[in-house]
Amino acid sequence: MKLPALPVLEPALKPRIQAHLDDLTKPQGALGRLESLALQLAWIAGNPQPQDPEACILTFGGDHGITIHGVSAFPQEVTPQMVANMAAGGAAISVFTRLNRIQHRVIDVGVASPCPFPGVSQRNVVRGTADPLAGPAMTREQAEASLQAGMDEVAQLPDAGFALLGLGEMGIGNSAVAALLVSVFTGLSPEEAVGPGTGVHGEALAHKLKVLHQVLAKHSPDPADPIGVLAAVGGAEFGAMAGAMLAGASRGWAIIVDGYIAGAAALLALALEPRLKDYLIWSHCSAEPGARRMLEKLNLEPVLDLGLRLGEGTGAALAVPILRSACAMLREMATFSGAGVSKGA
Amino acid sequence: MKLPALPVLEPALKPRIQAHLDDLTKPQGALGRLESLALQLAWIAGNPQPQDPEACILTFGGDHGITIHGVSAFPQEVTPQMVANMAAGGAAISVFTRLNRIQHRVIDVGVASPCPFPGVSQRNVVRGTADPLAGPAMTREQAEASLQAGMDEVAQLPDAGFALLGLGEMGIGNSAVAALLVSVFTGLSPEEAVGPGTGVHGEALAHKLKVLHQVLAKHSPDPADPIGVLAAVGGAEFGAMAGAMLAGASRGWAIIVDGYIAGAAALLALALEPRLKDYLIWSHCSAEPGARRMLEKLNLEPVLDLGLRLGEGTGAALAVPILRSACAMLREMATFSGAGVSKGA
Repeated sequence: MKLPALPVLEPALKPRIQAHLDDLTKPQGALGRLESLALQLAWIAGNPQPQDPEACILTFGGDHGITIHGVSAFPQEVTPQMVANMAAGGAAISVFTRLNRIQHRVIDVGVASPCPFPGVSQRNVVRGTADPLAGPAMTREQAEASLQAGMDEVAQLPDAGFALLGLGEMGIGNSAVAALLVSVFTGLSPEEAVGPGTGVHGEALAHKLKVLHQVLAKHSPDPADPIGVLAAVGGAEFGAMAGAMLAGASRGWAIIVDGYIAGAAALLALALEPRLKDYLIWSHCSAEPGARRMLEKLNLEPVLDLGLRLGEGTGAALAVPILRSACAMLREMATFSGAGVSKGA
Repeated sequence: MKLPALPVLEPALKPRIQAHLDDLTKPQGALGRLESLALQLAWIAGNPQPQDPEACILTFGGDHGITIHGVSAFPQEVTPQMVANMAAGGAAISVFTRLNRIQHRVIDVGVASPCPFPGVSQRNVVRGTADPLAGPAMTREQAEASLQAGMDEVAQLPDAGFALLGLGEMGIGNSAVAALLVSVFTGLSPEEAVGPGTGVHGEALAHKLKVLHQVLAKHSPDPADPIGVLAAVGGAEFGAMAGAMLAGASRGWAIIVDGYIAGAAALLALALEPRLKDYLIWSHCSAEPGARRMLEKLNLEPVLDLGLRLGEGTGAALAVPILRSACAMLREMATFSGAGVSKGA
């Protein structure tokens, strides 16, 4: 399949942005992480004084055959119920996007039962993945179609010179799939990558871990074949998020990764196109234990650390005002020379 | 002097808010810190579904006699220059408040030279504090007047049923004063409380520490006499922030503490009225090394951890959208019963 080409970010622009940052009326570096975010955003925007970015979050829904092995605290029927709740504006992501001036779209890419709700984008490529202990979760064609669905959804978004594109998901059982992908792409052990998800503890968590080991033993997924990995363990919303990340970056937008599940999709996208790294902003460190280990192993610094473990794109939405503030700092703050403020020793 | 009375927060309301939180369409606790913030905000608002709060940040400017001992990297003339920059809309706090729907007021409460700039609230009680190695930084009357100035500024704010009031500051040398107050009110040693401020390192930092020891040795400030402590070490913006915190809480508003300097003012306010604690939200952990130690010692959890060390109220401003999101979650999310979503096991 054909992946979108990412614009080359100009290395010579970085020192120009840094020089502008250092001329703003504050001690150098005094805005800490906000300054490194501003540098990255301006670099992606190709402008030391980026415009106020449009923001959009896409939430992809999918179901997982692995749930028949009892890896989740919620039943699979919750996936379409929550897709409906999002479309109706009652989910956490609905509330956060509405409040924070963010477009929101909900997409059925892999839900087991139809989601014929007003406002849901219909891009289903599989009615729930297959049991990965019986065979691959998806065919290779379905895996590619899920990536394409994410790209197609981004292609539908309106023009915006510079924008923030956040990716989130809804899918009962997908923290198990995320743990598999994280383990394959980072080398973390299943023990390090597994976690309670929405509420699996004690013996149930030990059972979840056992199932992960069985899936890995059955497929021996090869990280050098990212689409093969996606087909083997699933699922459609991971493929769609990865495709959307690549498509968003190809439009010159900054990509906001939500939590652990979206992070696993980002690892898949990075395996397909390592240059995506410069476009990615890791919005928060999920409470899922594997999330911190993954971020540390890859030397990534999240924006927020609020103990969130909901998904949907909620962490990405909460990070948007901070990213917009970083852009506004570059665009609107006075300079030492312009404001007649004395520099420090 | 007469301090404002704080409304008693109703203990019986807390379980009602928690029950509402647990009925929202998400796994219980899945929004982590956002849920504990929502609980606190709703408790202060007196409503499990609080309105979208108005937000206002007050930035108080003041100068410090201690600067003649070389404790800051910037010259004192920067204080009025930055007050002018804020009033003109070019400072970081100006940019962040404009972007994030926050009122902003700049107040001269203790700047050494007049600040006759359009938009600056004129409440000067001292033209820079005195040298605390020669005598007290302020008279007791000046210290009380600074608290009153903060209360008076809050009294001028328009009516709002529920609001977020953030306090920030601008004052060359005030990280030295903050370290003194933190040391007195928490028992942290000057070694633990001191830090580089806007850029004091190496020998200059060792000298700053020596000056702090000298001030403490001269005055032996008694934490049981908070106004005496404020008079001894200064300064006016600390008193004004403390007064504004108490006055804001007396109006039933949530109080957002900015960084290390505003945190020291919060310790002063808490020494005057311990019940203020329930109203305080600690917006971020400053990069000033004493900040994390102070928060840990007092068992306080900040909202953000972005390595900020600018002051002005910038961290408070960046936390506002997250606090508004916490209120919106309570007000607008669907409930399990209302949305027909199945609960987990």
